Amino acid sequence: MKTRDEALKKAGLLSEALPYMQRYDGRCIVIKYGGSAMTEGLRADSFAGDVALLRQSGVRPVIVHGGGPQIDRFLKERGIESRFHNGLRITGDEEIAAAEMVLAGAVNKAIVRQIAAVGGRALGLSGMDAGLIEAEPLDKNAETLGFVGRPRQVRADILHLLLEKGIVPVIAPIAADKKGQRRNINADVAASAIAAALKAARLLILTNVPAVRGEDGLPMPSLSLEKARALIKKGVIQEGMTPKVETCLEAVKKGVEAAVILDGRQPHALLLELFTDQGAGTLFHARRPPHQKMRTNP
Amino acid sequence: MKTRDEALKKAGLLSEALPYMQRYDGRCIVIKYGGSAMTEGLRADSFAGDVALLRQSGVRPVIVHGGGPQIDRFLKERGIESRFHNGLRITGDEEIAAAEMVLAGAVNKAIVRQIAAVGGRALGLSGMDAGLIEAEPLDKNAETLGFVGRPRQVRADILHLLLEKGIVPVIAPIAADKKGQRRNINADVAASAIAAALKAARLLILTNVPAVRGEDGLPMPSLSLEKARALIKKGVIQEGMTPKVETCLEAVKKGVEAAVILDGRQPHALLLELFTDQGAGTLFHARRPPHQKMRTNP
Amino acid sequence: MKTRDEALKKAGLLSEALPYMQRYDGRCIVIKYGGSAMTEGLRADSFAGDVALLRQSGVRPVIVHGGGPQIDRFLKERGIESRFHNGLRITGDEEIAAAEMVLAGAVNKAIVRQIAAVGGRALGLSGMDAGLIEAEPLDKNAETLGFVGRPRQVRADILHLLLEKGIVPVIAPIAADKKGQRRNINADVAASAIAAALKAARLLILTNVPAVRGEDGLPMPSLSLEKARALIKKGVIQEGMTPKVETCLEAVKKGVEAAVILDGRQPHALLLELFTDQGAGTLFHARRPPHQKMRTNP
Amino acid sequence: MKTRDEALKKAGLLSEALPYMQRYDGRCIVIKYGGSAMTEGLRADSFAGDVALLRQSGVRPVIVHGGGPQIDRFLKERGIESRFHNGLRITGDEEIAAAEMVLAGAVNKAIVRQIAAVGGRALGLSGMDAGLIEAEPLDKNAETLGFVGRPRQVRADILHLLLEKGIVPVIAPIAADKKGQRRNINADVAASAIAAALKAARLLILTNVPAVRGEDGLPMPSLSLEKARALIKKGVIQEGMTPKVETCLEAVKKGVEAAVILDGRQPHALLLELFTDQGAGTLFHARRPPHQKMRTNP
Amino acid sequence: MKTRDEALKKAGLLSEALPYMQRYDGRCIVIKYGGSAMTEGLRADSFAGDVALLRQSGVRPVIVHGGGPQIDRFLKERGIESRFHNGLRITGDEEIAAAEMVLAGAVNKAIVRQIAAVGGRALGLSGMDAGLIEAEPLDKNAETLGFVGRPRQVRADILHLLLEKGIVPVIAPIAADKKGQRRNINADVAASAIAAALKAARLLILTNVPAVRGEDGLPMPSLSLEKARALIKKGVIQEGMTPKVETCLEAVKKGVEAAVILDGRQPHALLLELFTDQGAGTLFHARRPPHQKMRTNP
Amino acid sequence: MKTRDEALKKAGLLSEALPYMQRYDGRCIVIKYGGSAMTEGLRADSFAGDVALLRQSGVRPVIVHGGGPQIDRFLKERGIESRFHNGLRITGDEEIAAAEMVLAGAVNKAIVRQIAAVGGRALGLSGMDAGLIEAEPLDKNAETLGFVGRPRQVRADILHLLLEKGIVPVIAPIAADKKGQRRNINADVAASAIAAALKAARLLILTNVPAVRGEDGLPMPSLSLEKARALIKKGVIQEGMTPKVETCLEAVKKGVEAAVILDGRQPHALLLELFTDQGAGTLFHARRPPHQKMRTNP
Repeated sequence: MKTRDEALKKAGLLSEALPYMQRYDGRCIVIKYGGSAMTEGLRADSFAGDVALLRQSGVRPVIVHGGGPQIDRFLKERGIESRFHNGLRITGDEEIAAAEMVLAGAVNKAIVRQIAAVGGRALGLSGMDAGLIEAEPLDKNAETLGFVGRPRQVRADILHLLLEKGIVPVIAPIAADKKGQRRNINADVAASAIAAALKAARLLILTNVPAVRGEDGLPMPSLSLEKARALIKKGVIQEGMTPKVETCLEAVKKGVEAAVILDGRQPHALLLELFTDQGAGTLFHARRPPHQKMRTNP
Repeated sequence: MKTRDEALKKAGLLSEALPYMQRYDGRCIVIKYGGSAMTEGLRADSFAGDVALLRQSGVRPVIVHGGGPQIDRFLKERGIESRFHNGLRITGDEEIAAAEMVLAGAVNKAIVRQIAAVGGRALGLSGMDAGLIEAEPLDKNAETLGFVGRPRQVRADILHLLLEKGIVPVIAPIAADKKGQRRNINADVAASAIAAALKAARLLILTNVPAVRGEDGLPMPSLSLEKARALIKKGVIQEGMTPKVETCLEAVKKGVEAAVILDGRQPHALLLELFTDQGAGTLFHARRPPHQKMRTNP
Repeated sequence: MKTRDEALKKAGLLSEALPYMQRYDGRCIVIKYGGSAMTEGLRADSFAGDVALLRQSGVRPVIVHGGGPQIDRFLKERGIESRFHNGLRITGDEEIAAAEMVLAGAVNKAIVRQIAAVGGRALGLSGMDAGLIEAEPLDKNAETLGFVGRPRQVRADILHLLLEKGIVPVIAPIAADKKGQRRNINADVAASAIAAALKAARLLILTNVPAVRGEDGLPMPSLSLEKARALIKKGVIQEGMTPKVETCLEAVKKGVEAAVILDGRQPHALLLELFTDQGAGTLFHARRPPHQKMRTNP
Repeated sequence: MKTRDEALKKAGLLSEALPYMQRYDGRCIVIKYGGSAMTEGLRADSFAGDVALLRQSGVRPVIVHGGGPQIDRFLKERGIESRFHNGLRITGDEEIAAAEMVLAGAVNKAIVRQIAAVGGRALGLSGMDAGLIEAEPLDKNAETLGFVGRPRQVRADILHLLLEKGIVPVIAPIAADKKGQRRNINADVAASAIAAALKAARLLILTNVPAVRGEDGLPMPSLSLEKARALIKKGVIQEGMTPKVETCLEAVKKGVEAAVILDGRQPHALLLELFTDQGAGTLFHARRPPHQKMRTNP
Repeated sequence: MKTRDEALKKAGLLSEALPYMQRYDGRCIVIKYGGSAMTEGLRADSFAGDVALLRQSGVRPVIVHGGGPQIDRFLKERGIESRFHNGLRITGDEEIAAAEMVLAGAVNKAIVRQIAAVGGRALGLSGMDAGLIEAEPLDKNAETLGFVGRPRQVRADILHLLLEKGIVPVIAPIAADKKGQRRNINADVAASAIAAALKAARLLILTNVPAVRGEDGLPMPSLSLEKARALIKKGVIQEGMTPKVETCLEAVKKGVEAAVILDGRQPHALLLELFTDQGAGTLFHARRPPHQKMRTNP
Repeated sequence: MKTRDEALKKAGLLSEALPYMQRYDGRCIVIKYGGSAMTEGLRADSFAGDVALLRQSGVRPVIVHGGGPQIDRFLKERGIESRFHNGLRITGDEEIAAAEMVLAGAVNKAIVRQIAAVGGRALGLSGMDAGLIEAEPLDKNAETLGFVGRPRQVRADILHLLLEKGIVPVIAPIAADKKGQRRNINADVAASAIAAALKAARLLILTNVPAVRGEDGLPMPSLSLEKARALIKKGVIQEGMTPKVETCLEAVKKGVEAAVILDGRQPHALLLELFTDQGAGTLFHARRPPHQKMRTNP
């Protein structure tokens, strides 16, 4: 009799997800899936299942992934030490070739396979494919950083084409500039640009750290652009978190409804954030929070 | 901390529904929703929510409703006593006018409103609308029964048109025959004919009785056409249940993947049946059960 | 030889209708079909045929019907007396339930059946179906009037979908407000709101009275908004007619090309109005009459 | 008061056309419009109006025209005498050039202009345009006849494309063979081949003679293939009529629902034939007459 | 061995055309093909092949043809002398009938046949077909010139419809005015109006004279609107050329990217102009030349 | 003056390509592009340009690439020696990971970039993306060979979707089997399966060896299935060539019109083969050679 009660409970819980599904029906959700988050095996399964469930529920998920630790390991196996400048990988010929193989080859296809394994349908792209992203050199420190780039333009028609057919785009943040030179792009920044081009309902940045904390040291469920800028100025938002927060603010400024930094180490973080009232991180919004939703501390 | 745990559990349970959603993705599910089931207020809410959730999950639900008790009450208020012959309402001028008003007016719009109340989009039709059902007199006992009919032809293009746009068709089983005469059709029979015309994945008949029971008196989770016929012959399937079972067999014979008689008094009976392994009634199938699914006793 | 001459004459007359058909080709015509007009049997047949002919000639007709006398009779049979305030039905629980059954059940389906009987294809809707009309309480006298409403918003996509497929929408003016409460809407007002949402070429209000009369007591074939307002002010337009005229003016103000109050007791009133130079009532237009058409007195 | 009565009568007659319009709704009607018929000015106006009315009523008319008298006149003005063999024009270089200019130039554009003058939209084509007709030499007497051809293949996609947009195709029966040589095709034969390619509901051959007469000398409203063949054998169908009748039989054999030889000198012959019970000529059908329609003698 | 080398060379040259094809991919190119150019047999073949190649390469070519010499000859054969006023044909009843037969009949169909002969698909239209061009009398000298007209309005939807299906429109510049009167339009002017309606990438006017020459007597590869106007004022652009140049300027002013007067006597003039760096005439552009392309003297 | 003459010659040669372009208009051409061919820098440029030109000419090219030498080098840099069994790479965990990174990462994106560099639009896929290829273990020697697979099923809808939008699919022959295990597939075999699924007009296998030679030691321009099988039996077709030839025969047997083994070391080999009479290799066809084309020795 126990399974029967469980089934009843399950059906009841399922039915509670309806208003959340309706809220995002037909809307794009861009998910930055970090290389660190990925390396914890169990989470990967839950991640792919969550993505497939979003798709099945009428949401249009787009994944942008990183792969820093995987590139580090790859280079190390070849006896090359990863070097960074202000948190950005110094990228020479060896590094850009490695980034391409690891990101567009290994990591990208692993995610595609994970989604297929749970019955979804995904297609892996780099920024070069179908001219999705045109890169340009990151303006300052170009000499120091080498082939590091940033998105100059996003041509999103291919994403709409795939989403229309129920296919989940999985994007490796490597693109060519006007001269055809490959350039490595920070995955958060790529995700933000893509979210802006799609006028997404959400940019979700999955990290392996807890939520942003306020002056009282407590996690903050949501923040307006203004307030977030104030906290950065005051130094309350810590150094490592600052560029992530700024990427979120940029996305919101460019028309994304809201951006969320959330702890990807939680199981089903995506469902928690989108399909329950709990939320799973810190949400950044323009003036008013979307849906006037009350968020409790994560 | 309790709500957080609950949210985590909820997300986990949600993710378990994915394979079930994928199984019915883009498929039509025809649901017979009986007048009795309807009269229990609470169930109605859960029913509408379940239908909207099915739609949101990529399923294409079509509802065919009855309204017997409501017609009885309506006639009684006018001092007319409902009369039946072999379980079918003897239908004269008064009765057919009452059936039309109650079914196509009150009950149909109540269901449409319930689905709208949970954020879905439904459109109520009778068999007359857009020429959906052409009726013919029920061949035997035509004199005794009056304006009782059965479907001669189903023109399902309007249903596909609506489903394509995410609109749930809600159908009152009253139709006109070739001469334009209104005719009352048994809702189970109408649902079966519509399911056949749509080559539906399931015909679900919601009743207010428990599952079909076998020779040992225990509920039977599934039955092949052959076995069901044998049990009817043997008299194991009881009298009141026989026409429902035969309607199910008819649907399966005409190309519906499987038909289920299920106890609509259970909360979330639809989700229980379609989105969990439990099932909620007795499933009738051709030779082999669909999806080789193991069903435990309800 | 007589039939041959008749056939020749008929062919000649048919050919004269061409420029009128071309004038309305692909345009929406919203027709308010009153409950009183309906009760005269013969007219109903001619009405359905005219609607089917319009459709067949490339016009896109949309019907909004009333049903006042039918509701009165229904309530009376239950021993309830109809009560009115300023011409609007005082609507309690009993009345709204009756209105729904009579309008969305009996009257709506009768019209659908009449159109089917002459070879057309119609689909009956209430304002609740597919979210066509969202109602709001009629602002003043809400306490006095009960569940009387007016359109707050029209979502016309379902109408275009049906018209595109050659299906004539037939609309019962009952809708739900934001809270899901059923509300009775005056059929003229509903027709006007729908005509505005469709940017219709014409709003035709079929009544059972002759045309609007001017200061000289003669029927007026056409009136500009300005002139009509002046006549209302002067009291020349009589009391009973005033709300109908104001509904017409409202429609024209919101983008309907012209609105006509016409005597539905004439046979083929719709064809007379649209497909001959005669016209059949009083036409209200913005500054200049459409098509500079010369109208003679009806 | 007289005009009012007339308008009422007109509306009534209009409404009688509905079942006929519905009968041909969305169906192709191929009309052979002869050069002789054309030369009577008044008829031309009525012809164009009838075609536009058919189009406006949901029918898909396609016109194939001849131009024999016009070619004769053209050649005569140049001092060339028209020569015939078995009723077919002996066609050398001069004649084919003349045929092209007269048919594809003068006659074709005159018809297009006439239809435009009554508010329709027509587009003139020759068999060469968009590869509509591929000709081949008329097998026997090729040496005698010169550049006379017959259709080897019809590529009808362009006609569907135009009809879909409400444009009436007007076709001059001149086409190129595989080698690019222009060839003159008998207009009846071209119309028959096009009707077969379109699986038309009717092939209407407008002539300037009365209906086919039977053994009793009386006009025959309809004939089965079998009976028509018997009458040709018996010599009852006169010599001049025989090829026209055979072209009709050919069309019916290839899938056209029925073919009619009708007297184009009557005003509104097309409407008379299609939109009244009278008919206007002799209808050829396969086994049973279409629509079981009772036809009286023209 | 020689053929092999040639094939290799051919393949290499082909591949050099790619950037030019890409430049005009999906863009409309309107080509005025003069009656004089046509009369040189060999050129006609090369012209049709070039048009078919443009189409096959993703370009959307539209041809507008003249036929002056052919009309002259036609009239002469009938003993009528062609008369001109300021370079425009004085057009009476005889002349307009001749123009229609020669342009819409002989010349139009000859071009259609030439394109078919090289495997392309073309459809010939006059300005009357599908209401493509509505003419109006040429304002000045209307009395002197008779039925000479100019485009009042272009309704280009039929052109897009044909181009979408890979069909090349071939247009004879004769159209009807509002009253249905046929009017002869200068082919350059018609081509310019059509190019403007299509927002074409190029208007190419094929002539039988060399390029426009500058003050130094040398051919000029390209000219801005301003500069061209200055040269006309100065009288450097010779009299015969002035109206052609003004037609080009008019097209550019109305949104055509550039207009070119080019010597159609060169073989493959179209390919030379569009698919090589050479160019084949004088290009008129707004402020800056399109594509910053360096043009050498023709 | 020299450049002018060259331009004229170029235009002439261009125009000769038209019939070849028309032959393949809208047809799929699957091109196997080998890893060896790729390593010769210059060829790569010419290859990408040829592909883009095919696309621009109305052909639908699909590229399947190998990458053997690149995988060898990659493994060698990690100190792993490539081992083969019957010409197939023995594929363990290290090898399959390497194959994925090199094929789906480095080589795939290099080709995409090359096509972008010449103005084309390409999108790189592996067999895993959008479920394009489902692999199964290569039946014999599964133990010896490890993760070597072959196509069990091709789901080509994604290819049609991309081709329809003018995007060239570039495919890395690595796919997952039913259990999600990555498997390396021989690129020739993958190309053959994809060509069969697309009912391609041609399968072109670019190699770095000259054409197949006959018994007389001379290159053979074309071979029927039968004759090819006879030559394999006789041992005339050499060992290294045999599997390639058999892959071609397989493709033709499954509905590809013809398959060609051609020497990819020639510049513009694709254009040579498809757009000239020369051909560039050995063509395998069913009974009769396609287009009855006369092929001279390469």
